[in-house]
Amino acid sequence: ITASSIQTVTLIPGDGIGPEISTAVMKIFEAAKAPIQWEERNVTAIKGPGGRWMIPPEAKESMNKNKIGLKGPLKTPIAAGHPSMNLLLRKTFDLYANVRPCVSIEGYKTPYTDVDLVTIRENTEGEYSGIEHLIVDGVVQSIKLITEEASRRIAEYAFEYARNNQRTSVTAVHKANIMRMSDGLFLRKCREVAENYKDVKFTEMYLDTVCLNMVQDPSHFDVLVMPNLYGDILSDLCAGLIGGLGVTPSGNIGANGVAIFESVHGTAPDIAGKDLANPTALLLSAVMMLRHMGLHGYAKKIETACFDTIRDEKVLTKDLGGNAKCSEFTADICRRVQDMD
Amino acid sequence: ITASSIQTVTLIPGDGIGPEISTAVMKIFEAAKAPIQWEERNVTAIKGPGGRWMIPPEAKESMNKNKIGLKGPLKTPIAAGHPSMNLLLRKTFDLYANVRPCVSIEGYKTPYTDVDLVTIRENTEGEYSGIEHLIVDGVVQSIKLITEEASRRIAEYAFEYARNNQRTSVTAVHKANIMRMSDGLFLRKCREVAENYKDVKFTEMYLDTVCLNMVQDPSHFDVLVMPNLYGDILSDLCAGLIGGLGVTPSGNIGANGVAIFESVHGTAPDIAGKDLANPTALLLSAVMMLRHMGLHGYAKKIETACFDTIRDEKVLTKDLGGNAKCSEFTADICRRVQDMD
Ligand SMILES: CC(C)[C@H](C(=O)O)[C@@H](O)C(=O)O
Ligand SMILES: CC(C)[C@H](C(=O)O)[C@@H](O)C(=O)O
Repeated sequence: ITASSIQTVTLIPGDGIGPEISTAVMKIFEAAKAPIQWEERNVTAIKGPGGRWMIPPEAKESMNKNKIGLKGPLKTPIAAGHPSMNLLLRKTFDLYANVRPCVSIEGYKTPYTDVDLVTIRENTEGEYSGIEHLIVDGVVQSIKLITEEASRRIAEYAFEYARNNQRTSVTAVHKANIMRMSDGLFLRKCREVAENYKDVKFTEMYLDTVCLNMVQDPSHFDVLVMPNLYGDILSDLCAGLIGGLGVTPSGNIGANGVAIFESVHGTAPDIAGKDLANPTALLLSAVMMLRHMGLHGYAKKIETACFDTIRDEKVLTKDLGGNAKCSEFTADICRRVQDMD
Repeated sequence: ITASSIQTVTLIPGDGIGPEISTAVMKIFEAAKAPIQWEERNVTAIKGPGGRWMIPPEAKESMNKNKIGLKGPLKTPIAAGHPSMNLLLRKTFDLYANVRPCVSIEGYKTPYTDVDLVTIRENTEGEYSGIEHLIVDGVVQSIKLITEEASRRIAEYAFEYARNNQRTSVTAVHKANIMRMSDGLFLRKCREVAENYKDVKFTEMYLDTVCLNMVQDPSHFDVLVMPNLYGDILSDLCAGLIGGLGVTPSGNIGANGVAIFESVHGTAPDIAGKDLANPTALLLSAVMMLRHMGLHGYAKKIETACFDTIRDEKVLTKDLGGNAKCSEFTADICRRVQDMD
């Protein structure tokens, strides 16, 4: 590794167990000699001019410079009017695609053994537009905004993803039987884009049908693309199939290579600082990040070590069914990574 | 049974396998000597004055007179502008609560064994308001409408249901962190109503969290109440947990006792008329109907016979894992019902 080949990544450790699991990831990256240098930044929201909440400028500048970020969990805002920082980050950097690969983990028992799918969620509009009105007393409207541009962009992302990741099909998930105009527009764009990807199979399914089939037999699904809220729901459902948010990686992807990878579980304040947290979700998110950066060898090495530790069942954190501390689980992965050299 | 105690129910056999499974239900009701008389009606939409699609007047009059209906599957409309008859029926009779008990069926293997919950879906507004606009080319809005009245009404229904059915908790399912005004209003009404039902435990959960927890361990859930679209999704997901729409009953409840019970599976045109269909969903919907009418003894008898036939595993239709014809499955249930006398 030459100094010039080392890339800098913005690290947002986050709240609660965030710092511990970030440390775990840094240790494993070091053991793997991954050519990554971390630039740590805090993203506690600050009030900007005009009273609008914003990302602290140091964090924003770091992201703008490095383009790639890794993020731990953030506290849910409690103050009224305070935005979700997760949403603000997606918005600030126009991270339009939320990508969550859900793959069954050998050795971690769930009712399902053969899940291998990816949810791709439109991350910028839809039901998350934030436009709501009080019409008259007791009558409220929320607006779901669907645009041609965002729909085409996410559809293209999904098909590119399928093609570049040796996946064979893309399913558009919708309720265009009910929301004929909005989901209809989304679906039309998916169909149009599908025309340019004849090597990838395209299907369309209702969201309710997907949920039903998903819990009956998830093995049929491959890449799924959908509007914002449906993605929020389906990505969590699918995470549940493979063991929950503690083991599910996530990436938020924007244009020109900009991306933030994050664990989507909570801050677990009850166990924070006690060396009990499970760093798997953040570690696998960091593995997604390595792949995004083209560092496939390092990604494979770390991922294999992590899955080997889990399959081995000897050194597991409590949520995974064991008694090990976060640092012991981390050390076991480090040892395996080093043994591979 | 005296002639005067016989109640008339509107029977809408529906399309595809609808007539066969309706016949099965009628046979079983006859074997059980249930005091029900059927008034068969067709609900193929007709064009009313001004070109608006409507329920045929004979069906509407029958429902208005009898108040209670049992309905098989209806074809999805294909003609543009033709409404979903399912939605039109809910609207015409103001059937504001969609109720789906999901209970694991002994002998029918799924990844879950201890599901015992009820989804209660607001059936009249929300994302199903049908209001959509084209703002400018390529930009579309769909409106989700939430009213205080409909929210209070469905919350009250859920708590009454819990109290009258020996259930201990009601969970309001929402995304008020995103749709603060609309889901916020829904949630506020649930909280207010909960104050009047101190004997029932009240909790609130995000829809995504519910989906995640549901596939990890559904046994924790009891009564769930939610806006229209969330109910569409969650009720299908929960049906999947117990074996799919072929075994899941459903009821659409309105004011003053008006109600339509229906199987929510498709018309299965590929097997229609071949005596291969599974009548379980329609039969269990008819059992819900009997309970709604206060005929608990008959309900119990028929339900027990149906579950006994399934548990016995000897006479099952193909979708349930057997080779029996619809008529043989039906005959087995009839025999058991008669043996109980
Ligand atoms: C934290 C919350 C605002 C967010 C969402 O609803 O999108 C979360 O559920 C997610 O999926 O990232
Ligand atoms: C048929 C369709 C319009 C309907 C819906 O979306 O509500 C169905 O999915 C249901 O759940 O009854």
